[in-house]
Amino acid sequence: MKSSAKKALPAAKLKLVRLGIDTYRENVVYLHRDCEVYRAEGFQALSKVEICADGRRILAVLNVVDDAAIVAPDELALSEEAFDQLGLGEGQGVTVEHAQPPVSMDAVRRKIAGQRLDQQDFHSIVKDITESRYSKTEISAFLVASGQSDMDRDEVLYLTQAMLDSGERLDWEEPLVADKHCIGGIPGNRTSMLVVPIVAAHGMLIPKTSSRAITSPAGTADTMEVLANVELGIDKLHDIVRKHRGCMIWGGTARLSPADDIMISVERPLGIDSQGQMVASILSKKLAAGSTHLLIDIPTGPTTKIRHMRNAQRLKKLFEYVGDQLGIQLEVVITDGRQPVGNGIGPMLEARDVMQVLQNDPQAPNDLRQKALRLAGRVLEFDPDVRGGYGFAMARNILDSGRALERMNAIIEAQGVQTTSYALGKLTHDILAPTDGLVTAIDNFQMARIARFAGAPIDKGAGVDIFKKLGDVVEKGETLYRLYAEFPSDFKFALALCEQASGYTIGPQADITRAFMEF
Amino acid sequence: MKSSAKKALPAAKLKLVRLGIDTYRENVVYLHRDCEVYRAEGFQALSKVEICADGRRILAVLNVVDDAAIVAPDELALSEEAFDQLGLGEGQGVTVEHAQPPVSMDAVRRKIAGQRLDQQDFHSIVKDITESRYSKTEISAFLVASGQSDMDRDEVLYLTQAMLDSGERLDWEEPLVADKHCIGGIPGNRTSMLVVPIVAAHGMLIPKTSSRAITSPAGTADTMEVLANVELGIDKLHDIVRKHRGCMIWGGTARLSPADDIMISVERPLGIDSQGQMVASILSKKLAAGSTHLLIDIPTGPTTKIRHMRNAQRLKKLFEYVGDQLGIQLEVVITDGRQPVGNGIGPMLEARDVMQVLQNDPQAPNDLRQKALRLAGRVLEFDPDVRGGYGFAMARNILDSGRALERMNAIIEAQGVQTTSYALGKLTHDILAPTDGLVTAIDNFQMARIARFAGAPIDKGAGVDIFKKLGDVVEKGETLYRLYAEFPSDFKFALALCEQASGYTIGPQADITRAFMEF
Repeated sequence: MKSSAKKALPAAKLKLVRLGIDTYRENVVYLHRDCEVYRAEGFQALSKVEICADGRRILAVLNVVDDAAIVAPDELALSEEAFDQLGLGEGQGVTVEHAQPPVSMDAVRRKIAGQRLDQQDFHSIVKDITESRYSKTEISAFLVASGQSDMDRDEVLYLTQAMLDSGERLDWEEPLVADKHCIGGIPGNRTSMLVVPIVAAHGMLIPKTSSRAITSPAGTADTMEVLANVELGIDKLHDIVRKHRGCMIWGGTARLSPADDIMISVERPLGIDSQGQMVASILSKKLAAGSTHLLIDIPTGPTTKIRHMRNAQRLKKLFEYVGDQLGIQLEVVITDGRQPVGNGIGPMLEARDVMQVLQNDPQAPNDLRQKALRLAGRVLEFDPDVRGGYGFAMARNILDSGRALERMNAIIEAQGVQTTSYALGKLTHDILAPTDGLVTAIDNFQMARIARFAGAPIDKGAGVDIFKKLGDVVEKGETLYRLYAEFPSDFKFALALCEQASGYTIGPQADITRAFMEF
Repeated sequence: MKSSAKKALPAAKLKLVRLGIDTYRENVVYLHRDCEVYRAEGFQALSKVEICADGRRILAVLNVVDDAAIVAPDELALSEEAFDQLGLGEGQGVTVEHAQPPVSMDAVRRKIAGQRLDQQDFHSIVKDITESRYSKTEISAFLVASGQSDMDRDEVLYLTQAMLDSGERLDWEEPLVADKHCIGGIPGNRTSMLVVPIVAAHGMLIPKTSSRAITSPAGTADTMEVLANVELGIDKLHDIVRKHRGCMIWGGTARLSPADDIMISVERPLGIDSQGQMVASILSKKLAAGSTHLLIDIPTGPTTKIRHMRNAQRLKKLFEYVGDQLGIQLEVVITDGRQPVGNGIGPMLEARDVMQVLQNDPQAPNDLRQKALRLAGRVLEFDPDVRGGYGFAMARNILDSGRALERMNAIIEAQGVQTTSYALGKLTHDILAPTDGLVTAIDNFQMARIARFAGAPIDKGAGVDIFKKLGDVVEKGETLYRLYAEFPSDFKFALALCEQASGYTIGPQADITRAFMEF
């Protein structure tokens, strides 16, 4: 073998620097354009590179810097999350080289070409995603490819299993660990915060971990946070749950299905969410959280995620199939998704609704109360000692007697009463009925957008308070709903949106949206 | 209308700063975490925001900064390209607000759901992409969705038209403006640099604009740059072409189908390239460059882009359909894609091959010569005065007589002789035949990767020089090809790749890859 290597240079080391830039879930490395290694390696723009030292390595996307004050030619700077991931100290010498695209991208390309992937493929892809080896564009490509070609049932099963395996798994050491999850698409609808105290008061274990809202005006964690602390470590969680049989906390402290969080961070801004991904996301999170018995709520209606009964049925079958294969006992209910449930949209307003129901306040929104009782009843029926059909009455007794309120207060105290004092948004505006008539339709998407523009959930006192529901008679000039905002720019945005479309349709009785509900 | 706005804050202005970070085709804005506007607006991580002042506005993705040395709380910093796009001066006061997702994302989501898009949809999407309103993940989603569901012919037509309309369009003010384009997938194959001087010597107008390589070891612009300057403005271009009837320059100075460049920058790293996108990309660029007559070369073979004759036929039909609708006269030839064409892979080695052919050097690679003559002949037949079938002989005469060489030298002088003195890579290594036998297969992908790892095209002297072609007899220990590199790290990478797989298969006569060629 003829070889003539004239000079052998040692792999040049650069000084590691932590750059105070939060690039949100994508590792970015900054090299100066005059950096010797940058020029020698011939990195092309936006290359993915691998940074190594002391046996530790991470992948990152390359940004080139022309300002030595940001990073000097003999330095290598990492975005905050990338630096923390690498886990080394500033000033340490690191090397940087071309990174191979993740091997699993071949599987993604096969999926793009319409092929079916196997268990191994999904595991490789999810592993690479979890280890931050995928750029956002690669994740986006995978999501669109697998979403669009409608993964078959077994592919959804493989994906769910792979996501479940990507992180930790909690074990409550009890045979029955209940949970409830709504697929979303309806604002308000804070039934979880009623189901948990009711079911916990019965004595069934229901350690509920929830997300913060990403695109909706409030998640269970955001709303619960109005009342109590939700960011608890896993140890504290175990104590509370052993004592009170339930809790409502933010699930982010444990590493449950971390691939799911990464994928959602790309999915939501794109506004995509296929049935397969929905099932994989929800079931991987619930199984990771240690649930053995799960109630799934699929609201169905013309302005929510699932528009037609046939799609709701398809989704139900998919949940049932994957759930059964993975050993979780699952019940799916398809519910009325024609309008927001409850009166409030936004953390404080929803928390108010919840407390009104728990306090048996006559002002409490009856639709929220009824729905929560029905769902709680179904969860109670997971208890082998509860006769089928008797759950609703049991739930109602627990609520009416005040035991649910008592349990809620105990859970709030145990998690830590919220010390920050929140107030409703100071900027308000009433949206009025433009004519006489009945409320014939309410657009869930629009109501959610309005509440979000108004500042929810970041501003806990922002959102919408609904005065009139579907089928209600209104007179011209009557208030349909009240908008709350904390900041003028949010207020302005939300108002503009209301002006474009209030979300309400007023008309004759015959036009009232018919229900697709089935219980 | 009841409204209570307690305080009306003026829209806060931030001082514009240009940050020396090249984020490569994605606008990024940097705000300090303590920036008042950042906190008030409640921007969520990775929000897309709109930066405005003086009636100018751009969209950008938000990165949050924790280091006041990078951007102070009263400042707003933009990545280099974003700053240049906004076109204002440092220190100017700008406002920043939530940006709406581009309206055309609705169309993308419809495409993801499998629907057919119309002309208007494609125009909206391409317009938003061209105006930098799309993040890389949104572009990725669009590419995968439209690539996978195989846009029908008319959708490809709409996309091509939209991309053509996204930039400038050159007009040569002559009825016949010829061009030639190969879809790629074969290394070497520098036929354009032979077709242009031959056709120009005949007197036909052939103003060839080319790209630099993105994922291949050399593009026409990279190889021509070994001999002459290729980055010329449009005026200079017109002068040269009027005088010499042809040129070979880099197309980046004119804004030809700018959406194409943006889409390619996402497509290539992902490794995706559907037929519809390929046609839209090529035809939009050629039409924008003012071509009236276009020859398309589709190499077909087991290790190139198009693997089967049926796919080559499909692609040919698609080119013909869209080309006819858009009024460009198009001929498509399907050629032998079993191995690299010529001996050199990499800018200098390919330029050497080209000059050898033009000089009628007996060492010149005959496959390159023959293919170039066939293609040039087909282009010559665009001339109404050239009888069908006579093009090859005419091309051969022009080449053999030296008129093609003369014209090439004239074009090189007119563009500006290359003053930088390039040399072949100093680090070399011969890859030897492991056994006796014949070369039965050569892997185009692997050869291209090896040349690329070796440093091509950035290092003009890097690449591969092929000694043995398909069907050649070899003895154990004979050189199959020689590797050239400039830098030790590249050399090391390329060697490692050769060791993994040389790209060559040695075996018995019966195993030689059969040709799918048809001319």
